[in-house]
Amino acid sequence: MTEVFAVLVTIDVRPETIDEFTAGLQANAVATRGEPGCLRFDVLRTRDDPNRFVLYELYSDEDAFFVGHRQAAHYPAWVQLCERCVPPGGRSNTYAVPAYPDGLTEHA
Amino acid sequence: MTEVFAVLVTIDVRPETIDEFTAGLQANAVATRGEPGCLRFDVLRTRDDPNRFVLYELYSDEDAFFVGHRQAAHYPAWVQLCERCVPPGGRSNTYAVPAYPDGLTEHA
Repeated sequence: MTEVFAVLVTIDVRPETIDEFTAGLQANAVATRGEPGCLRFDVLRTRDDPNRFVLYELYSDEDAFFVGHRQAAHYPAWVQLCERCVPPGGRSNTYAVPAYPDGLTEHA
Repeated sequence: MTEVFAVLVTIDVRPETIDEFTAGLQANAVATRGEPGCLRFDVLRTRDDPNRFVLYELYSDEDAFFVGHRQAAHYPAWVQLCERCVPPGGRSNTYAVPAYPDGLTEHA
């Protein structure tokens, strides 16, 4: 049995690149939502710091993220975008799983 | 026009209280999902630290969280649970909004 895999990403963006970053992030979100293993890809900006973005991503299992997502044709553009817009150390990933069987709001 | 409001919560739990905390958190999740302003309440545990929980909550607007949720009949039980199971400084909230109009996976 596979288990839903969650990725929470916090990204601090160079303020002068916010418009470029937002456009590229939006394209990345649309493309990732089209991957067969992606269940959810929410793009948020923190209330208290408009240069900080938070992504909430759900995948059907761990491989759908580490293999399917990272080998997707659109992934290199995302990496390159972050190289331009995010300073070193400005991006961090947290990996998680549902805390119990009905931990997610709906069963994916 | 109201805007969806997101709350991300990170909670480090005293290891000896994990079972009590998980049961209480599950009851809190079920009750909160029943609030009229709650759109999503996902309960996750981080892959690398089983004592760290992450909540991903979406509300119809900011008041649905700060007023509706915090004045709900079930909210005091959650506060008391955290007093027993979470050490001082072990819980932090991040508030966020969609980064652009279709930032969420589905329009809520």
